[in-house]
Amino acid sequence: MASIPGFWAVVPAGGAGTRLWPLSRAAHPKFLLDLTGSGRTLLQATVDRLGPLTGERVVVVTGDAHADAVRAQLTGPSAGRVVAEPSPRDSMAAIGLAAAIVERLDPEAVIGSFAADHVIPDATAFEAVIREAVEVARAGHLVTIGIEPTSPATGFGYIRTGEPLPGFPTALRAVEFVEKPDAERATRYLASGEYRWNAGMFVVRATTLLDLLERWHPDLAAGVRVIAAEPERLDEVWPRLTRIAIDHAVAEPAADAGHVVVVPASFAWDDVGDFASLASLLPPVEGGASLRVLGSADDVTTVDASGVVVATGGRRVAVVGVDDVVVVDTPDALLVTTRSRAQDVKRVVDALVEAGRTDLT
Amino acid sequence: MASIPGFWAVVPAGGAGTRLWPLSRAAHPKFLLDLTGSGRTLLQATVDRLGPLTGERVVVVTGDAHADAVRAQLTGPSAGRVVAEPSPRDSMAAIGLAAAIVERLDPEAVIGSFAADHVIPDATAFEAVIREAVEVARAGHLVTIGIEPTSPATGFGYIRTGEPLPGFPTALRAVEFVEKPDAERATRYLASGEYRWNAGMFVVRATTLLDLLERWHPDLAAGVRVIAAEPERLDEVWPRLTRIAIDHAVAEPAADAGHVVVVPASFAWDDVGDFASLASLLPPVEGGASLRVLGSADDVTTVDASGVVVATGGRRVAVVGVDDVVVVDTPDALLVTTRSRAQDVKRVVDALVEAGRTDLT
Repeated sequence: MASIPGFWAVVPAGGAGTRLWPLSRAAHPKFLLDLTGSGRTLLQATVDRLGPLTGERVVVVTGDAHADAVRAQLTGPSAGRVVAEPSPRDSMAAIGLAAAIVERLDPEAVIGSFAADHVIPDATAFEAVIREAVEVARAGHLVTIGIEPTSPATGFGYIRTGEPLPGFPTALRAVEFVEKPDAERATRYLASGEYRWNAGMFVVRATTLLDLLERWHPDLAAGVRVIAAEPERLDEVWPRLTRIAIDHAVAEPAADAGHVVVVPASFAWDDVGDFASLASLLPPVEGGASLRVLGSADDVTTVDASGVVVATGGRRVAVVGVDDVVVVDTPDALLVTTRSRAQDVKRVVDALVEAGRTDLT
Repeated sequence: MASIPGFWAVVPAGGAGTRLWPLSRAAHPKFLLDLTGSGRTLLQATVDRLGPLTGERVVVVTGDAHADAVRAQLTGPSAGRVVAEPSPRDSMAAIGLAAAIVERLDPEAVIGSFAADHVIPDATAFEAVIREAVEVARAGHLVTIGIEPTSPATGFGYIRTGEPLPGFPTALRAVEFVEKPDAERATRYLASGEYRWNAGMFVVRATTLLDLLERWHPDLAAGVRVIAAEPERLDEVWPRLTRIAIDHAVAEPAADAGHVVVVPASFAWDDVGDFASLASLLPPVEGGASLRVLGSADDVTTVDASGVVVATGGRRVAVVGVDDVVVVDTPDALLVTTRSRAQDVKRVVDALVEAGRTDLT
């Protein structure tokens, strides 16, 4: 199928991924890494997945420090559309600037924002959902993709869905966005069938997004439009932009005002938030049903062990009698934890920063 | 106190220590390593401990492959008394040859055999026990040091003790040697108070040992006496010697014949058989009551972890939320296990040998 005329992808490539230390570091974060053993980094896989929908119309927004690495990973015309942020200003400024740039190129354009570090294995299912979302967006709605929850996850925000939107196959009105729930509420959400995970994927006309933003954060909307019109003013205007996430800046107030539509998605989606998540994305090692390896499986020797081994240090890794283990071997640092404690890896990074060892973070 | 005239130490330095892989390797086994963080290898600590008792009268028996490394670790005259075995022939041939060499130098000599890879922190207590053992040996007995058991260990053989030996402060007749017991029998042994661990430390006149050996293994006794008399025949005679442990060759039959005496010892003794054992020999890390580190504690970051980390790979080692863990980091291999599975580390070495990776063993 041909790409969708006038549809642009905006790919915010940020986030340190500290729960994936020592694989992910400040200098080469998660989105620059191949975390699935596919041979493509998360950023490359994201752009690959968007290709059939957007053709060359991809804008990647990343920090100054990573702009060169991002360009090096992208081939073809997308490499030229990398916007470097002088400093981190959260997702609204990043996506807003990309929207303003696209708006000037094509006033009718629809943009879709897709984080550079999420994994969606089923590209075909993804494409079908986005095609509907673009149609809904053209009608003037702010569309969010609502992922069908497969567990009562407490690490994601949820969207409560309402009535079907007339004229579209699957779209539903969004009633409200809700913050990350506790386990009890998450279980209720899952049981109700009314809630979906908010994966942070928004599809909307660039002009609609900026007009909505203007309503609640006029300075921010004006700021990104100024930079798009006069790129030489980036360093002057950017530092004054409000630091706010797109959810709080636009999506939540727009939902309250009845402007948000959910296109439901049942494809598998993972934000690779920690090593437990990473483990679930890897195929089991042949002959070791409960062991997953990222890197060189030939370097791993196990006896009665299950879990995930990241073998990128070029050394022999042996695990004996530990279940649900996480072993991450890199040339200069080694992590040992369990799947259930995967979220606490962040505390190692905190401890290293506190000890002045940012060379290791 | 002066050394004991006519008392010689025999130090068999062998054993691969496969349960201490990847720290211990075939090419640089356990006895050549500093496993206590003391700055001295196990071999050096053994010779240091014997110095006050034997002066320069120490004979180290080791494999050809390790003779140079052993000499390099020993300074002073002991370095010159290294006997290199052309091939492994078990402990009776090793200790028997040393006994035959000593017998020719001093027909009245008493020898004590002490493995090169055991740890005895209290040198003073050790000295007192050995001084009594030498006196008992001079009276013609085969003396074994009986370690007071501190747990129902199933990894050691035991000695059952009988009546006191008249004329000596603590010596007891040995009733029998018993093989490594199961947990239930070990518990009974411990409760009875009659049993002691057999640490493989024998003290005996060289001539008494060889005469006893002659009774049960005349060819072996003759063989080591021939080599001692004509060292140039080593390569010819050695390969024909019976492969047998000293316990089976002499100690057990001698006990049955009423020739063995136990000198009890209450000092701490450890054969550093695995990483659980090694952990118990290391001091706790400051501020981390349940964590022990061999190597550089500065390289270790832990969050809710206990156990032992061997940090000799020069890299950062981080452990999050794992109790009783064993992490051994070396430049070319890494091991993750638990204290309770420490004995199974041998299976990694078996697997590597089977896979043809003896470069790693």
